[in-house]
Amino acid sequence: MREQAAIGMTANGGLDRLTLTDTDREVRDWFRAEMVDAGLNVRVDEMGNMFGRRPGTDPDAGTVLVGSHLDSQPNGGIYDGPLGVLSALEFVRSLNDHDIETKHPIEVVNWTNEEGSRFQPAMMSSGVWAGEIPIEDAYETRDAAGNRFEDELERIGYRGEVPAEPQYEYDAALELHIEQGPFLDEEDRDVGIVTGIVGLRWGEVTFHGEANHTGTTPMHYRSDALVAATDVIQQIRRIPSTLGERTVGTTGSIEVEPDSINIIPETARFTFDLRDPDDSVADEAVERAHHEIEAAAEREGVSYECEQRMHAESVTFPQRCVDAVQSAVDDLDYDGRKLVSGAGHDATYMASVCDTAMVFAVSEDGKSHTPEEYTSWPDCYAAANTLANAALNIAGVSNSSEADV
Amino acid sequence: MREQAAIGMTANGGLDRLTLTDTDREVRDWFRAEMVDAGLNVRVDEMGNMFGRRPGTDPDAGTVLVGSHLDSQPNGGIYDGPLGVLSALEFVRSLNDHDIETKHPIEVVNWTNEEGSRFQPAMMSSGVWAGEIPIEDAYETRDAAGNRFEDELERIGYRGEVPAEPQYEYDAALELHIEQGPFLDEEDRDVGIVTGIVGLRWGEVTFHGEANHTGTTPMHYRSDALVAATDVIQQIRRIPSTLGERTVGTTGSIEVEPDSINIIPETARFTFDLRDPDDSVADEAVERAHHEIEAAAEREGVSYECEQRMHAESVTFPQRCVDAVQSAVDDLDYDGRKLVSGAGHDATYMASVCDTAMVFAVSEDGKSHTPEEYTSWPDCYAAANTLANAALNIAGVSNSSEADV
Repeated sequence: MREQAAIGMTANGGLDRLTLTDTDREVRDWFRAEMVDAGLNVRVDEMGNMFGRRPGTDPDAGTVLVGSHLDSQPNGGIYDGPLGVLSALEFVRSLNDHDIETKHPIEVVNWTNEEGSRFQPAMMSSGVWAGEIPIEDAYETRDAAGNRFEDELERIGYRGEVPAEPQYEYDAALELHIEQGPFLDEEDRDVGIVTGIVGLRWGEVTFHGEANHTGTTPMHYRSDALVAATDVIQQIRRIPSTLGERTVGTTGSIEVEPDSINIIPETARFTFDLRDPDDSVADEAVERAHHEIEAAAEREGVSYECEQRMHAESVTFPQRCVDAVQSAVDDLDYDGRKLVSGAGHDATYMASVCDTAMVFAVSEDGKSHTPEEYTSWPDCYAAANTLANAALNIAGVSNSSEADV
Repeated sequence: MREQAAIGMTANGGLDRLTLTDTDREVRDWFRAEMVDAGLNVRVDEMGNMFGRRPGTDPDAGTVLVGSHLDSQPNGGIYDGPLGVLSALEFVRSLNDHDIETKHPIEVVNWTNEEGSRFQPAMMSSGVWAGEIPIEDAYETRDAAGNRFEDELERIGYRGEVPAEPQYEYDAALELHIEQGPFLDEEDRDVGIVTGIVGLRWGEVTFHGEANHTGTTPMHYRSDALVAATDVIQQIRRIPSTLGERTVGTTGSIEVEPDSINIIPETARFTFDLRDPDDSVADEAVERAHHEIEAAAEREGVSYECEQRMHAESVTFPQRCVDAVQSAVDDLDYDGRKLVSGAGHDATYMASVCDTAMVFAVSEDGKSHTPEEYTSWPDCYAAANTLANAALNIAGVSNSSEADV
């Protein structure tokens, strides 16, 4: 963990390792060497996804996929992603150290561009691998400076030859990730057993009013796009409280034009992000938001457009995978807690290919996407230990191996 | 009017003639030639203010100053400013045509940088001339590209030698400007008799919350800077309705950080603009805004800073100048209406040097600072005719001139 964190570490102890940058190449080179060192058979696919394969003893058993991502936010922490990749690697090393063979083959994976900070959308390459995002679309994506995704992938030398799609039959997938929320820390738990991922709805709203002089235009003459927008943003804060205890609603981005202190805003554009573990509740939240948008437009005499930016159905992890994690927690005598992930993860796409579950590590104060992101080493260990044992529960110890792990 | 409008006209018929640009130099060169042609004695001061002087017959009579500004907004109209400057010039030409001498000397003026779009603050050079803004501060002002005001003034050749301060005793000043509001057009009036200028209060508020993941942070864990900001912006829309029919309140500018769809805003910065003809009402509006800022911060658990950006006391024009305009309106049998200017003008600073009043021309639909800004030629004429006769009322026809104008 300390070695990877040194590659792209910022002055304040955070991590700046955007996907397909030179630091991303550097951590990939390091990680490839570590995988080779652990005896894994490494392959890189057309999206730069890195797989390290360890054979199983049962020729009919599907592969167990374990991993996460090594890329970071521009000013993120050192745990978000890498903890899941390195816990997967450590699982393989433990198997090696104990001379354990598994029935199922095991693959460690580092997914390209999970964060989506530089190239949108997030979870791009697990999405391509799962067949949910066309590779042509991903390749044509450009960052803010205009660089094409495919060109940058070539540039850092990680545009592999293997097709970006499942190369084997996959039996199950497991991802360890930090919670990025406060529940485990608040309840002083050791580890989280993730039962699913919330449904997510993203939208962008634009109100069109009339630009006018702030000093000479009487209040009743106005069609102020920002007044309509702020009306809706207030409601987006309130909608969750009318729906459910796990519903969340946020406006993260806003801009106005002409954006001048003495001109009434002609245009106001803002985003909304509404989530709930239950898709029908998430849909209801969007519907209520639409009512508020319409009402605000009418009140202020402005017109509007509303565009869907993302729609991700909730994911419920299959019982057998959740049980594998729960059993590991029980066997290790950890204080675990079941919870639904509020954030999307590569596991969302893995779950569309094979049975999947997740393990959450404690996030101190729930902080993430900031250098203050922190998981204590004991909490890292508890999550990694849970992941290893859950993966072993699924992969199955071969009869020829020692029984005692 | 058509000749000046051609200098910097945009494709959509608007005007892009920011102060101290090449187009500003071009219109100044044209205007200087027109003033010389009208027999005026032209001088340019250290701020680039252009004066054209016509002597009076009474050696003890103070000068009557008439004019406005030739600079425009980046995407403004052709009337805001130029109509006042050219009406002043036309007044002098009429005096010439009718061989009228006035007791008081008359000066036509084009003030530099009234708009404040390129270099802040607005009304900069009448402010320096009136002794309200130090010339050193004005000179050091930079535009968004980093160009210094003084350097740009030199570059276009309009950094004059004359000190930027009153060179004569001024008896009175008159400014014709378009209303930029809807009152005259709504009531189908010919011209406006301006009795004063509203008091203006500008502020900038910054809320500091906590950046966090939109999906994993429960609603009750949040300190969302944008939620606090939108709370206040809604109140700024409402405050005028609790105070007076001429009170206005606006937020024209807002920005958030990190400005990402899936991160709770850590910082939200926005402006407010509150005005009323009565300073005590304007102050009360600011006080109510401060209460709302404090309440919103407490509700959302965020901290804040509030910075004053501008404070302009209201101006009440002296009765003798308002009467001079009213008499002109009556003599010309126009349908005039008294009103208070909701916008600041160079007249604000002229009023601190000598008795001042303003004439408003009709603004169709009250539109301004847009290419759609429009005043019909008959409305332009009515305002210019009112200005000329009001100025003549003050400047006094010399006994040696023909009595009939």
